[in-house]
Formats: sequence, structure tokens, C-alpha cells
Amino acid sequence: MRTIDWQDGAITMIDQTLLPHEVKQLRVTDVDTLITDIQRLAVRGAPALGIAGALGVALLADQFRNDPERVRADAARLREARPTAVNLSWGVDQALAALPEGHAAVLTRALQLRDADIAGCVSMGEYGADLVTRLVSEKTGKDQVRMMTICNTGGLATVERGTALGVIQTLHERGSLAHVIACETRPLLQGARLTAWELTNFGAPFDLAVDSAAPFLLSRGAADAVVIGADRVAANGDTANKIGSFSLALAAKYAGVPFIVVAPESTVDLSCADGEAIEIEDRGSAEVVNFAGTQTAPAGTTALNPAFDVTPHSLITALVTERRVVNFAAGQTLKDTPLGELRLP
Amino acid sequence: MRTIDWQDGAITMIDQTLLPHEVKQLRVTDVDTLITDIQRLAVRGAPALGIAGALGVALLADQFRNDPERVRADAARLREARPTAVNLSWGVDQALAALPEGHAAVLTRALQLRDADIAGCVSMGEYGADLVTRLVSEKTGKDQVRMMTICNTGGLATVERGTALGVIQTLHERGSLAHVIACETRPLLQGARLTAWELTNFGAPFDLAVDSAAPFLLSRGAADAVVIGADRVAANGDTANKIGSFSLALAAKYAGVPFIVVAPESTVDLSCADGEAIEIEDRGSAEVVNFAGTQTAPAGTTALNPAFDVTPHSLITALVTERRVVNFAAGQTLKDTPLGELRLP
Repeated sequence: MRTIDWQDGAITMIDQTLLPHEVKQLRVTDVDTLITDIQRLAVRGAPALGIAGALGVALLADQFRNDPERVRADAARLREARPTAVNLSWGVDQALAALPEGHAAVLTRALQLRDADIAGCVSMGEYGADLVTRLVSEKTGKDQVRMMTICNTGGLATVERGTALGVIQTLHERGSLAHVIACETRPLLQGARLTAWELTNFGAPFDLAVDSAAPFLLSRGAADAVVIGADRVAANGDTANKIGSFSLALAAKYAGVPFIVVAPESTVDLSCADGEAIEIEDRGSAEVVNFAGTQTAPAGTTALNPAFDVTPHSLITALVTERRVVNFAAGQTLKDTPLGELRLP
Repeated sequence: MRTIDWQDGAITMIDQTLLPHEVKQLRVTDVDTLITDIQRLAVRGAPALGIAGALGVALLADQFRNDPERVRADAARLREARPTAVNLSWGVDQALAALPEGHAAVLTRALQLRDADIAGCVSMGEYGADLVTRLVSEKTGKDQVRMMTICNTGGLATVERGTALGVIQTLHERGSLAHVIACETRPLLQGARLTAWELTNFGAPFDLAVDSAAPFLLSRGAADAVVIGADRVAANGDTANKIGSFSLALAAKYAGVPFIVVAPESTVDLSCADGEAIEIEDRGSAEVVNFAGTQTAPAGTTALNPAFDVTPHSLITALVTERRVVNFAAGQTLKDTPLGELRLP
């Protein structure tokens, strides 16, 4: 089952708010429902949001065949459903660009993006697994690696196969994965709910940890490399990702462990000079002061709830995309590193 | 109401597992119940555990007046109820030392420790508030400080008034506290449940944050100083405290923000050379994969659950006790810093 797809004139997607307890597929036929589903995180993960954006425009183009202005107006609302992930607006814009050619062309373009996401994740897995294996073996001499990750960057964050978790999956398929530490990822527990579900499904040995334990575990040598996804990568390599990523990066630097960002080229936002320019979504108090339906703090307690943080490129060893590795630690930059080929084994 | 006390021949204590929803006082008359209550965290906080240990020996000395060997044997079990906090064994040992003088002397000694805890927390508040105010004003010129803390180090972690949270309370009483960020403190949410309750009670302006957001918030200038408690301070200043403390220390260093440990002298363990020698309690998977009766991860998921971490003294600006400030950042050491007087305003 794909995380998000197009079937019989509608968007289909797994309702991720119900995992790991229930696997339920939603059928979405209008953009207002799609916007709500994006905001309540029924679909999430930067690459999947890109496809959601493109397929949403395909829905609109079909629904309002004679009203391109309406399509553009509703697409603008869809574009703003969540502010941090650049992929959502990227997917919307890519599909909108085909609108002058008619509604069928918009759908064709959206389906191309879907297929490119699938192939891109395979390629990221290849580039990333090679890089991790090389860095770890150079440092430790081991050919079995122990990985750490946060949030969910697996098939549930993309169409079919993940970014950072896709690298872990590729290592596992190659027989090179010794163990995974998955951070639970407060406040919404994407690590505990989604990543643990995917790791269980593909049979990788893993342990969960509370987010605040991960930096200490790194300092005590419990993992050989950290891989994370990205919601936006600035031109200088600064990376916005799930809250907690920055703290892992600090600890990885302290422990001398490679810290690798894995994300498609569509996540790179060259119009954004550095991390200071990235808007950080604050998702409000309710997610923090309630836990699984139970109020955890006294009535009236408010919370700061940044959903993302920004990791400066100085703390990032390398960025892996479907078409290149940019080794920041070796002095490489996004600007100077050419795109290579997709790697499809 | 005191967190822990001695009334009518029994130990009384607030059952902290029920906060903030219910304030219920337990009456404990035997050591097996006390051990269970310590292990399920009905009473917690290093200083409070010290008093629990001493009062537990007073219970035993009263119950087995003619059997000092039995007292010593049960005290040995009590001593081991939780491994990381040095205060528990310290309290047990302090009370046991009076056993040759009879059961009344044991109780007298335990009550002296209780009263010394109350006075010591007042004194830590004075030393700590002075230090924070000075460090922040030297750096920023401000006389109103924004504090960050983790876990619960307030009156609920001691007898009547806190250690690190006592410093925050003293700042508030002096009119010098602008704001507090309290980390929720997974997995057991002592920050959300207990610290938020105490901050609400004494009227300080605060926000809660998930633990993994705190390092990023520090990097963006959201707090002027971090104060934490301690479960054990090694001879070189390395400090074991609630999991997440290390990650705050790394971020405070990165952000140039003072990171201050506040703990009584009884927490200093000169027999422990450095942090590598401190045993870290792993509390098992259940606390991580379940919350409030709801399973958060797929069935069969295991977790690494270190309850504490160790912050190297190189990341600690200063240690504040009831009788001195040891300014590690200025090159001071525990060994070379003499004890001063209690400060009782």
C-alpha cells in the first residue's frame, strides 16, 4: 500500500494519526478536506506533502475545468496549509505550471512527481548507505553499523520508500545494519508510532528512546551515525527538520559521530540563504499539555511548541539527495557540487 | 504541606504519581512499603530521597528496638531501592550512625536532616539567585532573568523548598524573574506534572516545552540561564541528573548561556572520581512505550530508558550548594573551594 496515491479520480492516503493501532485508507476528493488532513497530520513528511500538493492541484484542475482562476486561488490556500515544509509549495507549483495545458496535463505532471519520488528514494538509499558504510568503516573498521534517527522519514513520509529511514532500510537489505535507535519524537510521537511500525515491518533490530536520552546515548557510543530527513535545506546547508534534530546534531558533533541529512533535491530552497530565514511553525500548547488524550499539566499551562528546529550546516557532516552527496565536513557546498545521476540498482 | 515529614510515628508524604490531578498524603509505617513507594516514584528527588532514607531507618529502629541486626539488614535493602541518587544511601547511613545510641537518637538524627534540608534549600536559593543575577547582568545588562529547567527540583523534590527550582523561586520572590521554560521531562513528565504545578502555585510566568525543543530554544536566545538539580556530583564535578540534562548543557555551551547545577552538599560523592564511575539506572521499556494506559508503539517494541545522564564538568558553569559556589568555568574545583556559611535571610 502506498502512503499517498491517485486512484479512480481521487487521492488515497493512509491516515497516519491512527497508526500503529489501525491502518485505514482515506479517499480525498476535495481540497478543503485535503488541507484539513495535512494540518491534522493525517499525511505528513516533507516528500509526501509535495505529492499531496501536486495531487491536490490535479483534483482542483479536474473539478474546476473552466475556471483556472479558481484553481489558482484554491491552490494558493493549499500551498499555505503548513509553513515549514518547502515541498508542499514546490509540489503545488510544479503541478500548477502544467495548468495552461489543461487538466489532464496537471494530473500527468503530478503522477510524474509521484513516480520520481519513488525512484528518488531508492537512489537516496543507495547514495546514503554507501556514505554511511564508508564513514563508519573508516572510523571504526566495522562493516555493521548502528544507526540513530528521529521522527519518521520512511515510506510513510514519502510515497513508497523513505529518505533517512530509506537509507536505514537499504543498509538492512544489504546486511549491513546492526541496530537502530529510534527517537520517540515528542510531541506527536512519530518515532514511536510510525518509525517503530516501519522498522518492525521490515524486520530491523531496534530500540526506542525518549528524545532527550539520544544525545547522552550518542555520547556513550551507542550509535555510529545519525540520519535525519529535512523539511527545508537553505542554500548554505542549514537544515530545518523535526524538533530535536538540532540537539542530536550537537551531540553527534560532541561524540564525533557522522550526522547526515537525507532529503530530495526538492527540499533544497536556494531562495533561502540560511537557517535564520526559515519560518518555524509553532503548533500551539494543546499537543504538549495533553498526551494520548490525558491532560499532563495543570489547567491553564501554556507551552512553546516549535515543530521544527534549524541545524546549522557546521554541525552537518553531509547532505544526501537522490542525485548527489554534499560533504559539508569536507568543505563542499550545495553551489559547487554538481548533480549526478539517479542510482537505481 | 511538606513533601515528606514525620507525624505520629509514621512517615507522611505526598503521592507524587497522582499530581497534578490529586494531592493525596500517604502514611507509611513499614519499610517494604517505603521501598515500593520510592521505586514507583511516589517520593522522588534526590534530597527528598535522603530524608526518606533517614526516616525509613527511624521506622526500622523503632519497630525492631531489640534487633539492631534486623535494622541494618532492612536498611541495606532500603539503601539500594534506587541506584543513581547518592542521597538515599547518604540518608540511610547518617541515620544508621546513631543506632548505637538507641532508636530515639536515630529519629532525632533523621529529624535534624529534615530540618537541615529545609534550611539548606533556603541557602541554595540565596547563593544561586545571587550567582544567576550576577552572571546574567554581566552578560546582558538585564536585571530580569529568563530561566530554563528540567525535571522537578522544587519543594516536591525536597522537604519544603527546592534546589534548582528553589533558586527560581528566590528570583521570583526578589522580583527578578521574567519567565521560566520548564522541560516536560519524558518519560515520566515530572516537569509537566510537578514543576508546572509548583510554578503555578508560586505564581511565576512560565511555558512548558518538550525536552527536545529546549536546546533549540536556547540556541535562539529564549533563556538567560539554565538551572538543574543533581542526583550525584562526582569529585571532579561531573554531574548525574535527569535524562536530558546533558543535552541542555551542550546547548547552553553552544549558546553561551550559564549552566548551573544546584544541589546540597550531600549530593557530592567524593568517593566517585568522575562521571564514568556513576551507575546509570535503566528503568526498562514500559515507561517509554506506554503512557497513561495507552500503548504508543507497536506491540513488542523495546526501549533504551536511561533515567539519568552524566554532564561533564567542562559543560557546567558552576555548582551551587547550601554552603558554597564552585565556579568550574572560572577554574575552581570542589577540592579547592572551602565550605562557607549557610545563608538564611
